[in-house]
Amino acid sequence: MGAPVTIALDAMGGDHGPSVVIPAAAIALVRHPDLHFLLVGDAARIEPVLAAHPALAAKSTVIHTDVAVAMDAKPSQALRKGRWRSSMWLALEAVRDARAEAAVSAGNTGALMAMAKFCLKTIQGIDRPAIAAIWPTVDAECIVLDVGANVGAEARQLVEFALMGAAMARALFGLERPSVGLLNIGVEEIKGLDQIREAAAVLKDAPLPMRYHGFVEGDDVGQGVVDVVVTDGYTGNVALKTAEGTAKQIGQYLRAAMGRSLLARLGAVLAQGAFRALRDKLDPRQLNGGIFLGLNGIVVKSHGGTDATGFASAIDLAYDMASSGVVKRLASDVAGFHAKLELEGAA
Amino acid sequence: MGAPVTIALDAMGGDHGPSVVIPAAAIALVRHPDLHFLLVGDAARIEPVLAAHPALAAKSTVIHTDVAVAMDAKPSQALRKGRWRSSMWLALEAVRDARAEAAVSAGNTGALMAMAKFCLKTIQGIDRPAIAAIWPTVDAECIVLDVGANVGAEARQLVEFALMGAAMARALFGLERPSVGLLNIGVEEIKGLDQIREAAAVLKDAPLPMRYHGFVEGDDVGQGVVDVVVTDGYTGNVALKTAEGTAKQIGQYLRAAMGRSLLARLGAVLAQGAFRALRDKLDPRQLNGGIFLGLNGIVVKSHGGTDATGFASAIDLAYDMASSGVVKRLASDVAGFHAKLELEGAA
Repeated sequence: MGAPVTIALDAMGGDHGPSVVIPAAAIALVRHPDLHFLLVGDAARIEPVLAAHPALAAKSTVIHTDVAVAMDAKPSQALRKGRWRSSMWLALEAVRDARAEAAVSAGNTGALMAMAKFCLKTIQGIDRPAIAAIWPTVDAECIVLDVGANVGAEARQLVEFALMGAAMARALFGLERPSVGLLNIGVEEIKGLDQIREAAAVLKDAPLPMRYHGFVEGDDVGQGVVDVVVTDGYTGNVALKTAEGTAKQIGQYLRAAMGRSLLARLGAVLAQGAFRALRDKLDPRQLNGGIFLGLNGIVVKSHGGTDATGFASAIDLAYDMASSGVVKRLASDVAGFHAKLELEGAA
Repeated sequence: MGAPVTIALDAMGGDHGPSVVIPAAAIALVRHPDLHFLLVGDAARIEPVLAAHPALAAKSTVIHTDVAVAMDAKPSQALRKGRWRSSMWLALEAVRDARAEAAVSAGNTGALMAMAKFCLKTIQGIDRPAIAAIWPTVDAECIVLDVGANVGAEARQLVEFALMGAAMARALFGLERPSVGLLNIGVEEIKGLDQIREAAAVLKDAPLPMRYHGFVEGDDVGQGVVDVVVTDGYTGNVALKTAEGTAKQIGQYLRAAMGRSLLARLGAVLAQGAFRALRDKLDPRQLNGGIFLGLNGIVVKSHGGTDATGFASAIDLAYDMASSGVVKRLASDVAGFHAKLELEGAA
C-alpha cells in the first residue's frame, strides 16, 4: 500500500445521489483501505447515509453545497448557472487544487466534460480530451477511446487519442509497450476514412513506447487483438453501446432458452455456478466508468443509473488511475512526442 | 407459390467457389421449389458438383466462363480487367437483362459493388446505393443500413437510406408503416453530427408510408426499438462487426464457464437442446447476406468464407427480396418523395 489516495465524489450526481454514492464509497474503502474521500453535496442528505457507515465516516470529509447540476442541464447552462457552487464543480476543484487525486461523478456527461475542461484544462500539447472505456476481451481487457467526448476526429486527434490510450494502458495494465490499433472497416472498396489513414501514417513511426498494430475491425475489439483501440467519439460510442446491447440481448435469449423445457431448467440449476460466473463477466457494473483523458487531473464518469456496486467500480478505476501516475506519464509522453516531431520537422 | 424465381449465382465467388455455391443452391431449392438458377462460372468445376444434385441440375442453367474476380482485386482493377467475362459480371448482367430476378455472390465486396453500380445503375433519384444487413433483435429482426458501401454520409444520403430501408422492411417484413430510427449518440454535450440532425428534420415530415421514430442508440438496435436503423457505412460496419464479435466472445465465455466444473458440464448436457436453440439464434450463417439497395435490381453479397448453410441463407434473402417486388416499390417511393419535395420547394 502506497501513500493514501484521496478521491472527491460528486455525491449529488446520477439518478440516486448520496443513497448510491455513499454505500459505493464504503464498498471501495474495504477494497482499498488507504482511500480517503471528499464527499461533496447536500450535508443534510449525506450525513444520515454516512452515519450507517462509521468506517467510511472516519475516512471522509463532507463538503457541503446545496447546488447540484441537473441531469438534463445543457453543458453551456451548467457552466453559466451556479457553476462555482455545484457539487460537480467543487469535486473537480479539489482535484485542481491537489486536495484530491481524482474526481468521480455520475452526473450529466456533457456538463462534467465542459466543467472538467474549464477547471482542469487540457494537458499541454493535447488538443481535445477524450473519454476512454475499459472493454472486456476474451482473455482480459482493452481500452477504447474516444467513446463520446467528441464527434468526428481529425488525424491529429486520433494520434493524440493513441498517445492517451497507450499511457493509460501502461499505467493500468502495467504494459511497457501496449499495442494500439485504429478502428477501421474492411470493405475493400473504400478502406476507411482519410483521417484514419493519415493517423496510421503518423503512428507507424511514432517515437513512443507503444506498438502500432495497424487497423482493427469491430469484431477484433472483444477478441483482445490490441490493448488500445482508437476511434472517433461517435463511432466509439455506437460500438460501446452496441456491444452492451448485444450482451443484454444474448442474456435475454439465454434466459428464454433455459426456461423452455424441464430438462433445460434442470440443467440450468446444475450449471448455476457457471451461469453466475458468466453473469459476473457480462455485468456492465464491473467495468463501470468512462475515464476523461487528456486533462490535468483524473476524472471518472460513472453511469448515471448505476447502483452502489457500479459506482464502486468507478471509484476503483479512479483509484487505479491515481495510483499509477498516469497524468504525469501522459504529459511527458506528449511532450516527448511533440519534441520529436519538431526535431523531425526541422531536419 | 407464385411465378418461378430465377437467381443468378456467381459460382466462383468466395473462398470456396462451386463446392459451397452448388450445395447451397440445392438447400435453397428444397425450401423454395419454384427457384431456378443460372450458375455462372467454370463449367469444368461446376458440372462435377452439380452431378451430385440431380434435382438442382434439372432447375439450373450453367453459364460458362473461366474468368473469376480475385478476392483481393481492387474494385478499379476488377472493373478494368476482363470484367465483361467474369462470373461476377455475367451474374449481374443476367439481372440487368431480366434473365434473372437477383444475383448472389460471395466475391469481393468492393468489386461487386463497383460492378453492380456500373451494370445495374442506381434507381433514379437515388444518389448512392447502400448495403443493408438484417440484424437479429430480441423478438424478430430489423434492417440496418448502410453497413459499408460508403464512408460518411450527408443528410441527403441518410434520408435516401431511410427510404430504401423502409421499402425493404415493407417488402421483407410485410409492414405497412415500418418505424425508422437514426443511429446517434446520447451524450448530452454534443448530440451527434450535423448531417444526422438535418436528416432528422427531413424525415420528421417525410411524405412516406413510414413512421420516423427519432434517434436510436447502439443498444436500441438489438432490442428491436425500430424496424429500420439508418447510419453511415463506416459506423454501420463497425456496429455490425462489433455485435458479431460480442456474440462470438460471449459464446467463448459460455463454453469456458460450462466446462469449468463437473456439475456445470452435467447441466450443459441436460440443457443441450436449449443451447442448440441459442446457438442457432446466434449463428451468423442464419442471417448471412448484405443486400445492395438502390440499384435497378437485387444483388446479395454473401460472406466470402461462409459454408453451404450460410450461402443458402443469402439465396433465401435474394428469393424473398425478388418475390416481394422491392425494387419497383422503392423506385415508386423515391419518385413520390422527390415529387412531394419539389412541390413543397415550389410552394
